Amino acid sequence: MSTHSDPNVTPRQITAYATLTRNGSIEEWSFRQREARPHDVVYDVLLCGICHTDVHMIGPWGQHFPVVPGHEIIGRVTEVGEAVTGFAVGDIVAVGTMVDSCRRCGPCTAGMESYCENGATYTYDGLDRIDGSVTRGGFARSGICDERFLFHVPDGVDLAGTAPLLCAGITSYSPLRRWNVGPGSRVGVVGVGGLGHVAIKLARTLGAEVTAFTTSPDKVEGALALGAHDVVVSRDEAQVAARVNTYDFILDTVSTTYPMTPIVNTLKLDGTLCSVGIPDRFDVLPIALAQGRRSIASSGSGGTRETAEMLAFCAQHGITADVEVIKPDAINDAFTRLAANDVRYRFVIDMR
Amino acid sequence: MSTHSDPNVTPRQITAYATLTRNGSIEEWSFRQREARPHDVVYDVLLCGICHTDVHMIGPWGQHFPVVPGHEIIGRVTEVGEAVTGFAVGDIVAVGTMVDSCRRCGPCTAGMESYCENGATYTYDGLDRIDGSVTRGGFARSGICDERFLFHVPDGVDLAGTAPLLCAGITSYSPLRRWNVGPGSRVGVVGVGGLGHVAIKLARTLGAEVTAFTTSPDKVEGALALGAHDVVVSRDEAQVAARVNTYDFILDTVSTTYPMTPIVNTLKLDGTLCSVGIPDRFDVLPIALAQGRRSIASSGSGGTRETAEMLAFCAQHGITADVEVIKPDAINDAFTRLAANDVRYRFVIDMR
Repeated sequence: MSTHSDPNVTPRQITAYATLTRNGSIEEWSFRQREARPHDVVYDVLLCGICHTDVHMIGPWGQHFPVVPGHEIIGRVTEVGEAVTGFAVGDIVAVGTMVDSCRRCGPCTAGMESYCENGATYTYDGLDRIDGSVTRGGFARSGICDERFLFHVPDGVDLAGTAPLLCAGITSYSPLRRWNVGPGSRVGVVGVGGLGHVAIKLARTLGAEVTAFTTSPDKVEGALALGAHDVVVSRDEAQVAARVNTYDFILDTVSTTYPMTPIVNTLKLDGTLCSVGIPDRFDVLPIALAQGRRSIASSGSGGTRETAEMLAFCAQHGITADVEVIKPDAINDAFTRLAANDVRYRFVIDMR
Repeated sequence: MSTHSDPNVTPRQITAYATLTRNGSIEEWSFRQREARPHDVVYDVLLCGICHTDVHMIGPWGQHFPVVPGHEIIGRVTEVGEAVTGFAVGDIVAVGTMVDSCRRCGPCTAGMESYCENGATYTYDGLDRIDGSVTRGGFARSGICDERFLFHVPDGVDLAGTAPLLCAGITSYSPLRRWNVGPGSRVGVVGVGGLGHVAIKLARTLGAEVTAFTTSPDKVEGALALGAHDVVVSRDEAQVAARVNTYDFILDTVSTTYPMTPIVNTLKLDGTLCSVGIPDRFDVLPIALAQGRRSIASSGSGGTRETAEMLAFCAQHGITADVEVIKPDAINDAFTRLAANDVRYRFVIDMR
């Protein structure tokens, strides 16, 4: 028996914050955490970001209530399974949007497990591939994760500002890299929120000339402070129309359907708009794509290889999310404010 | 005065076939052709394909009635302007979807005039950039075109089968090349009609493994005969679902909105569906793009450089459209049959 998997401490009852029923509020709840398997790492949650996905998951998208949200997790290792080689008790670690995948398909073997052809296991409200139990997110005192899906947090980074990188960060970084954003690129970032504000920092640091698009005139100054070279207030049709045929790539972080054609028209020939907000549908005229051989794409987070790369890139360049740290008793208020777009730019729950 | 521009023969009154009012039938009509400018070539129309665009243009899309449709034109040169260097009287020539562009923007200087940032001048129902007159298509006894937008027809090709290459051919060829279709590619072609049947031949000849998607079980044999390696009857959900994560590229030739998500799901990671049918909107779930980092693109015909390349490629490989040649008095019947999908696979009007 491994000395790391002490039967006197696992399985354990874990205090968490959950919505018990669809569209319910978040309240304290507890669940039984499984015993650590040989490759598992158990960690105390230190910090967990609140992602816009969480808003959907406690409502229409949730599958297995009670739902314990949270997939932007920073933790400290408390226990490691007997076969774990990469982590030790006390390590500061991070978990993102997934905790398992089939590990055999093309994308998995390429370290792109977020595109697992058999479906990655989400960090919460997923079903464990071995015992079928519901996975629980970072709105909890403790978490458990196979070491393949766990990341080391680089020394010296701000932990609260790093938590959102595990979803907002990688979801921005991955398409920026996929579409070769770098020096010489002209990039638009639509939406200056949780994802968009990190995307502006990342695109700028990658060497691009960055334009932020926002519907909120009161976000202009903030976007410039984040590193945007200029800002377009997208409710002003003339401002948008003046940018026709301008951008090589647009990262669209808007999670609702909006009239996308004027934005698409700001793409150059062969340009791509990648939607990471993933609304219910796209309101776009196909002819706007035809006229510039433009593409609309979407992208789902990033795999383990790229997430580790992103964390190193952000540590090297001092990139973190701008966060408002809250205590667990403020979670419901934070959800309300998030739905009203009232946060600059990400809530992070301090679980310590 | 050029001996080529005899004032005794131009301007001339040209017999044509036009729809006089929106949604009208096609009837004989005549118009005054402009005098040849120094770079113009005048040609007798020999053959002209009927494109699905023509159906839209005599209806909702038409701007300047009467409309003389036709942008898949084969002609014989009858007159050349004094500055024309590339063509001589008697040459067999071809005209596609455009007859002019700004010639100064990035796409124009790259020979990609179909993406002219100032708007290419369409072969018919466009406005001439010099005198503002309405351009007239190939449903006419004669046409006129600046030599930059005119193509030599390679010797020895079947002229009737070549006419549709000027729109259906280049509109398929251009995206197949843009998305690097070649040996090792797995390609889907959605719709086995005017564009799709040429796309199957082109993709196969480029070295791809080709699957045709059709809603019509009675088109299966035809698609195989055209060169498809296999055929999916796309109304059969199970057949489509069995191809999930299969194709590198899909050329979608459907001109109406249809439930696109199951087709998009047949794309591999990073695959692209390019719609050249350009429906009014796309019925697709953004999450289907996110799950495979897939793209939806569109593409508008091709420029002069690529059209010349396409004509040479088709001549080299013996690729022509499968056509049903009709006389002008059968145009209205052909439009009715085209709208009913009752042609294998393209009507061509013999204007001789």
